[in-house]
Amino acid sequence: MKYGRGYNFSAGPAMMPEPVLEEIAEEVLNYRGSGMSVMEMSHRSPEFLQIYEEAVADLRELMHIPDNYKVLFVQGGGTVQFAMVPINLMKNGCACYVETGSWSKKAIKEAEKHGEVKIVASSADKNFSYIPDCSDLDIPENADYVYICENETINGTTYQKLPNTKGKILVSDQSSMFLSRPCNVEDYGVIWAGVQKNVGPAGMAIVIIREDLIRDDIPANTPAYLSYKTHADADSAYNTPNCWAIYCCGKVFKYLLNLGGLEAIAKMNEEKAAILYDFLDSSEFFTGAVAKEDRSLMNVPFVAPTKEDDAAVVAASKEAGFDNLKGHRSVGGLRASIYNAMPKEGVEALVEFLKDYEAKVK
Amino acid sequence: MKYGRGYNFSAGPAMMPEPVLEEIAEEVLNYRGSGMSVMEMSHRSPEFLQIYEEAVADLRELMHIPDNYKVLFVQGGGTVQFAMVPINLMKNGCACYVETGSWSKKAIKEAEKHGEVKIVASSADKNFSYIPDCSDLDIPENADYVYICENETINGTTYQKLPNTKGKILVSDQSSMFLSRPCNVEDYGVIWAGVQKNVGPAGMAIVIIREDLIRDDIPANTPAYLSYKTHADADSAYNTPNCWAIYCCGKVFKYLLNLGGLEAIAKMNEEKAAILYDFLDSSEFFTGAVAKEDRSLMNVPFVAPTKEDDAAVVAASKEAGFDNLKGHRSVGGLRASIYNAMPKEGVEALVEFLKDYEAKVK
Repeated sequence: MKYGRGYNFSAGPAMMPEPVLEEIAEEVLNYRGSGMSVMEMSHRSPEFLQIYEEAVADLRELMHIPDNYKVLFVQGGGTVQFAMVPINLMKNGCACYVETGSWSKKAIKEAEKHGEVKIVASSADKNFSYIPDCSDLDIPENADYVYICENETINGTTYQKLPNTKGKILVSDQSSMFLSRPCNVEDYGVIWAGVQKNVGPAGMAIVIIREDLIRDDIPANTPAYLSYKTHADADSAYNTPNCWAIYCCGKVFKYLLNLGGLEAIAKMNEEKAAILYDFLDSSEFFTGAVAKEDRSLMNVPFVAPTKEDDAAVVAASKEAGFDNLKGHRSVGGLRASIYNAMPKEGVEALVEFLKDYEAKVK
Repeated sequence: MKYGRGYNFSAGPAMMPEPVLEEIAEEVLNYRGSGMSVMEMSHRSPEFLQIYEEAVADLRELMHIPDNYKVLFVQGGGTVQFAMVPINLMKNGCACYVETGSWSKKAIKEAEKHGEVKIVASSADKNFSYIPDCSDLDIPENADYVYICENETINGTTYQKLPNTKGKILVSDQSSMFLSRPCNVEDYGVIWAGVQKNVGPAGMAIVIIREDLIRDDIPANTPAYLSYKTHADADSAYNTPNCWAIYCCGKVFKYLLNLGGLEAIAKMNEEKAAILYDFLDSSEFFTGAVAKEDRSLMNVPFVAPTKEDDAAVVAASKEAGFDNLKGHRSVGGLRASIYNAMPKEGVEALVEFLKDYEAKVK
């Protein structure tokens, strides 16, 4: 790669497209003749408003977001969304959650502070290595929504088919798969995603919310920042937003549009993931950690025969210039995150490395 | 200025030091041989941990922060701090607030959601153009803390002497004066500041909190993100922090240390502000909006004889290359924000422009 850059398999923050970083580097000291950096720009200036509006418009085009959905930029990442979802959407005080791993568990823990949480399906029995059947969930009449983590970053699972919510609103955490494949927004009430995995720099979540779900009859002591209405009414500028993240994400949206949109991106991601999964399936040393039909295209956890082997592979891979192959501290093993911005060559090089490693230890 | 950059008098986001921006531009594609941008770096990587630790250490040195205070980096800006302060510090359910303008009013409104708020002093009677006497406040026995906005960005006032809190904890919003002059941290229980005014890019607040005020017996339904303990226990990495803002702020801390620390910075700021205030005091066309003894060194609001004159000056100043001189939409008039990063030459150039303008309209 150019500029002495390496292949970085981090689960997030993660690689960004090199052409986007080149543009950013070019504009740090003076954004397009404005006389200032985007970091120095008033969030109410015409220059920044244009950056904001283009970012929203490009995301709308990329995801074909219907007019009755709002796009919000909110700080605080997933942890804030785990709270905002129940605070803003629990009208009857009851919600259904599908438990598929670390991130849905965190969402459940936070939701329990605000009402009754019913776990309607779980893959805890097999260490979250698959997506449970969600075709006929037992959803109470008074449930306000059904919540899923659509791609579990740590566990490496993803939904191939959305749950049958039996008419209830579907809320999805798409953080680690956002913009990785086409998505029919109308299937959801709320989609949210931390941008630091598949889009831009950490410090912001994107929320796509159907307008009728933006309510003002939420608990009276709710902090202003935790109300979706606060952000929606002010076009994400109730207070100073993370302008830099909006700017960087906007560039990534344009880059993805230029690549041909989400259909084209999905094709690239499928090709890239197949290279790695085909190798894992053929290997006698490495084993994929997830049921084949539920495998993520973005996060690929795998293991060597022993924990000692895992650690040795991580050390050797770092030495060979592959960054962040260590599995999440909560599950161990290895994990390669291969988001949109990971070039195909990066996955090919990784597979070459793993093949060589396997040959040597045989 | 170099790179076609102009003088930007925005109240925030605002100018950053040019040498800091030069370093950032240099490192966007590859941070010091790490093979990646800081935006792409895992927040748990050794490279980022070093950036984080240096930022904290440099801020501690700059402000002489005692060992029994924690430094936290929290997303969501002032709006989140307005809620976190009462949620985390109201033990008895009562707090005292000094009302000095737009930002203390917002803090009051948010605190009222969580307990009894007593306004112990106010400058509302004179349109928030001064700081009320806080030497003998009527503070109830059960008050948990006394809250001030130490520099009102919109109104342009600042405290020359801290309130006598009669033994209660002092909480200060220092957003628009943070690091502009020496500060005796031990006088405070909590200092917080949105970084987008006097430090770095928007999207983060810095919280300096005395350790004994970090409690876990806060309301049970408090979102994890709104607990100071969440952030303190995890060294500001309970979830992915705004890594980019930490990185940029860290560079500014080093820059300020190299300039000689806060004593040296205060001297520069006094000199810069004097140039503008001396002109306003001598002008027959422009008038400073704040009582002399309470004037901010950072935000200088002033007015021309009529609203039409104000608008004409703003238009002419923009034409002449001075950005963001319009007063805040809530108060009107003009305002020059002259934070640490505004060069003395910028203030001199502005005064020249205003003098010429006055001469022409006479």
